[in-house]
Amino acid sequence: MTDQKIDVIGFGNAIVDVLAKCDDAFLEKFEIPKGGMILIDGDKASAIYADMAPGVEVSGGSNANAIACIASLGGHGGFVGKVAADALGEIFRHDLKSMGVEYETAPLEGGPETGRCLVNVTPDAQRSMATFLGAAGHVTNDDVDEDQIARGEISFFEGYLFEQPDARDAFVRACEIARKHGKRTALTLSDASVIERQGATIADFVRDHIDILLANEAEAAALFETEDLAVVAEKARIMAPLTAVTRSEDGSLLIPRDGETVDVAARRPDALEDTTGAGDAYAGGFLLGLARGYDLPRAGALGSLAASEVISHFGARPAASLKKLADSAGLL
Amino acid sequence: MTDQKIDVIGFGNAIVDVLAKCDDAFLEKFEIPKGGMILIDGDKASAIYADMAPGVEVSGGSNANAIACIASLGGHGGFVGKVAADALGEIFRHDLKSMGVEYETAPLEGGPETGRCLVNVTPDAQRSMATFLGAAGHVTNDDVDEDQIARGEISFFEGYLFEQPDARDAFVRACEIARKHGKRTALTLSDASVIERQGATIADFVRDHIDILLANEAEAAALFETEDLAVVAEKARIMAPLTAVTRSEDGSLLIPRDGETVDVAARRPDALEDTTGAGDAYAGGFLLGLARGYDLPRAGALGSLAASEVISHFGARPAASLKKLADSAGLL
Repeated sequence: MTDQKIDVIGFGNAIVDVLAKCDDAFLEKFEIPKGGMILIDGDKASAIYADMAPGVEVSGGSNANAIACIASLGGHGGFVGKVAADALGEIFRHDLKSMGVEYETAPLEGGPETGRCLVNVTPDAQRSMATFLGAAGHVTNDDVDEDQIARGEISFFEGYLFEQPDARDAFVRACEIARKHGKRTALTLSDASVIERQGATIADFVRDHIDILLANEAEAAALFETEDLAVVAEKARIMAPLTAVTRSEDGSLLIPRDGETVDVAARRPDALEDTTGAGDAYAGGFLLGLARGYDLPRAGALGSLAASEVISHFGARPAASLKKLADSAGLL
Repeated sequence: MTDQKIDVIGFGNAIVDVLAKCDDAFLEKFEIPKGGMILIDGDKASAIYADMAPGVEVSGGSNANAIACIASLGGHGGFVGKVAADALGEIFRHDLKSMGVEYETAPLEGGPETGRCLVNVTPDAQRSMATFLGAAGHVTNDDVDEDQIARGEISFFEGYLFEQPDARDAFVRACEIARKHGKRTALTLSDASVIERQGATIADFVRDHIDILLANEAEAAALFETEDLAVVAEKARIMAPLTAVTRSEDGSLLIPRDGETVDVAARRPDALEDTTGAGDAYAGGFLLGLARGYDLPRAGALGSLAASEVISHFGARPAASLKKLADSAGLL
């Protein structure tokens, strides 16, 4: 038992990424949408993996990547997500705990292996993902810890995991606990396809339980059924107390229900190497800023800073200390 | 049963590398010699890993890296080495088989986990390694396949694995089979510390069983007890039919028992990023050349080419097709 305050607790898929190079024919053969993400079962994962080039393994998961950024910024993060009691699970756990993240979710016993995301990179540097959720999809109410949520400023949920019915129940329970303790909740929509599949269910969840909604332009367009950002802002104000719409090199829009829209500039990276994880990193910086009580422009700038570091190198977690960068930029 | 010819069959440690950044104090705390390699037990591996920064996992093992280079050159390689029936073992196997390497060694049942090498990289880009052999040390006579050795031109042994008594017995058996079928044998000394610990044992093994000896300057100095390369050459001619001494940017010396020493130039890399794996890559290119019947200058040049590619990027296995590079250079 500890009484240490947590800035942000993430609830997401506990996934190890397997990165390898491929050509376009490979993606076609296995019907992996280029630049997108599909969920696959264990048999298809085995078939794809058997045909993949030699790879590199690295801890991933959208929400966990955001929490890693929070830790790199010097914040205290927590994570809730399910691995199996196997070597990949140990790797995933190590990589968060070694950054100081509180991660105590019990491993899944007697179920599938730790989840993995098969990331195939074509010569044009696009990443196409096929995810075998494995143990990751087995988050339940039992993994929700009231004490931990009460110590956290913001509980942050991953849209990808929202698609698992048991996990969705756990999200609702965690949100209720957060509200009871006067804490805030946040959701990233993760991918436009999540909205297509979940439709009204996810909109209802946002309206009923979420204080801070994060979406990129495509996800916002899918949710609000318009590409007109003025209309997006209007509808977002009705749906959530605060919405952040990320717009790649055009920065982000922060849309509070009861205030003016704030236009946040993107931060130019030293080099543009790999955009994977940009949205996760933005979420990490932005939510840490909100947890610390920063105003919207400063919280948004912290998100832009984290994103600019992550896209400057290969890999979705920060390679340099984000705290040092943010200190130099006067943002912490 | 197949009758496909194999260029080189490697016998070595089946190891997955875990790479992370550290500072000098970390190395001191765990008594890891800077730039060197120590063997550790499972408890120490757990203690070091718990304290390590977030990492990246990638298949390794000195001999397996050489075989990966042979496959990348378009050669047909085989590998004998022991993993456990776990996720890291699957990764190691996949990364060789996906390159077309014949790798059918049965996984270890009921023993330790798949071996791993904890590679800690200090800010000066030096790599310091702590290796938990795990299943890798459990190679025995049962893993030696007469049919496979008979199909191979050269059987290539790793000095690191020579230190395990059961594996050493397996090496002797494999050498006897190779001789019986009129095939050649090769050994890399792996590290000067191996010679310090094994002394006369390894010298006797070379004299009795090895046709091609590979060593870097430090290893040759330890084995022949002199740093004078002329004396090294004299003693090498007595010990083995052919010796290759690698000398980093000074290239390599090829010392046939019954001929003149051949001086092979190093090949300048596009960029010098990480020298790990240079010796393994050289061994791969050189042995493939010998297996194909190339003369010494051409086989040595193929070794230099493979090494120059591997040191031009982070990681010990080739990132580009070595076959394409060697074709352009007119070496295949």
